[in-house]
Amino acid sequence: MHFSEQDIENLDKVYRINLINSCSGYKSANLIGSVSEERINNLAIFSSITHLGSNPPLLGFFLRPTEIIPRHTYLNIKENSYYTINSVQLEFVDKAHHTSAKYDRKISEFDITKIKSEIINNFPAPYVKSSSVKIGMKFVEEIKINYNKSRLIVGKIVELNVDDNLITNDGFINLSDAKIATISGCDGYSFPKSNSRKGYQKPQKS
Amino acid sequence: MHFSEQDIENLDKVYRINLINSCSGYKSANLIGSVSEERINNLAIFSSITHLGSNPPLLGFFLRPTEIIPRHTYLNIKENSYYTINSVQLEFVDKAHHTSAKYDRKISEFDITKIKSEIINNFPAPYVKSSSVKIGMKFVEEIKINYNKSRLIVGKIVELNVDDNLITNDGFINLSDAKIATISGCDGYSFPKSNSRKGYQKPQKS
Repeated sequence: MHFSEQDIENLDKVYRINLINSCSGYKSANLIGSVSEERINNLAIFSSITHLGSNPPLLGFFLRPTEIIPRHTYLNIKENSYYTINSVQLEFVDKAHHTSAKYDRKISEFDITKIKSEIINNFPAPYVKSSSVKIGMKFVEEIKINYNKSRLIVGKIVELNVDDNLITNDGFINLSDAKIATISGCDGYSFPKSNSRKGYQKPQKS
Repeated sequence: MHFSEQDIENLDKVYRINLINSCSGYKSANLIGSVSEERINNLAIFSSITHLGSNPPLLGFFLRPTEIIPRHTYLNIKENSYYTINSVQLEFVDKAHHTSAKYDRKISEFDITKIKSEIINNFPAPYVKSSSVKIGMKFVEEIKINYNKSRLIVGKIVELNVDDNLITNDGFINLSDAKIATISGCDGYSFPKSNSRKGYQKPQKS
């Protein structure tokens, strides 16, 4: 099936959203925890969290200009600077996906979904208690993408909490052991069962 | 296991790279095909390709300032504007991962790995023949991340080729049917077997 630039532009809106959201492959599944000045906790699912570098340790995510859900996360990050990134796992995937519903800012998705929050070491944003990987983030930079007015939010990892048994000797976190989700498209969830490591590659000698 | 900001900074380099690269979850696995002014085809694996919007249809990826491999891709994109993004599948995952080895710019990873290239409709960059999802991209914007000097490369989808049987009625591409890979950390590959769709979420009525 071949789609030209014009074909894509002419597609039915929902069809285009599903097609373009799934064509680039699997995405990360994470819940961002944040808190407003009025101390209302927010929880929202994101599929765009991306590794930007290990030293300094940076993660980024994208916000659409017109989306309503992530705006609460954005406002909270601008107000408080700190937020958390938490893995999504099989046991609570339905609750996690439901955080994408458009609730009023006064309503906490922790309350609605009954996903339990957790404060660790007085970190100034709420973690998800059941997540095996919990990342404490500090906002460092916001970058506007001119072409579609979306924003890249860059944060630094300032603490990291990982279930002990998931980390191998060389620091690699075994996501499949924790039944961590991956997202495809807008609403497809998979739980990879196994994992094979290919190692560092050197050029073949000719 | 708890890592403070200081703990992370003090980690052994390889341990830190593995830990920070795997903490944010599963990543997309794609091969970027590009071509230099001297008509040498390049092929390189990327795990940072991210959806930035459906209308206009945009994908972004990140380049580290010090990395040597992606620099060829970057130079080619700056020279030629067009590039391709191709899915990585079980049948050729080892070859795909080997494109991460640091070959000289005069050497084409298509030749080294025996991954077959394909030209479709005179598109000015090489596709991967065996990929089930092949995306034709045009460079639109380059954005520097000040905090770590990495770059976000933004491109527009100008054509899309997907195996017919993978697209469901509403435009969703079934990645698991094609045995498309997802990456964890620097070198972990998984092939999700099934997929469940959760649907669009509306707020619960109280």
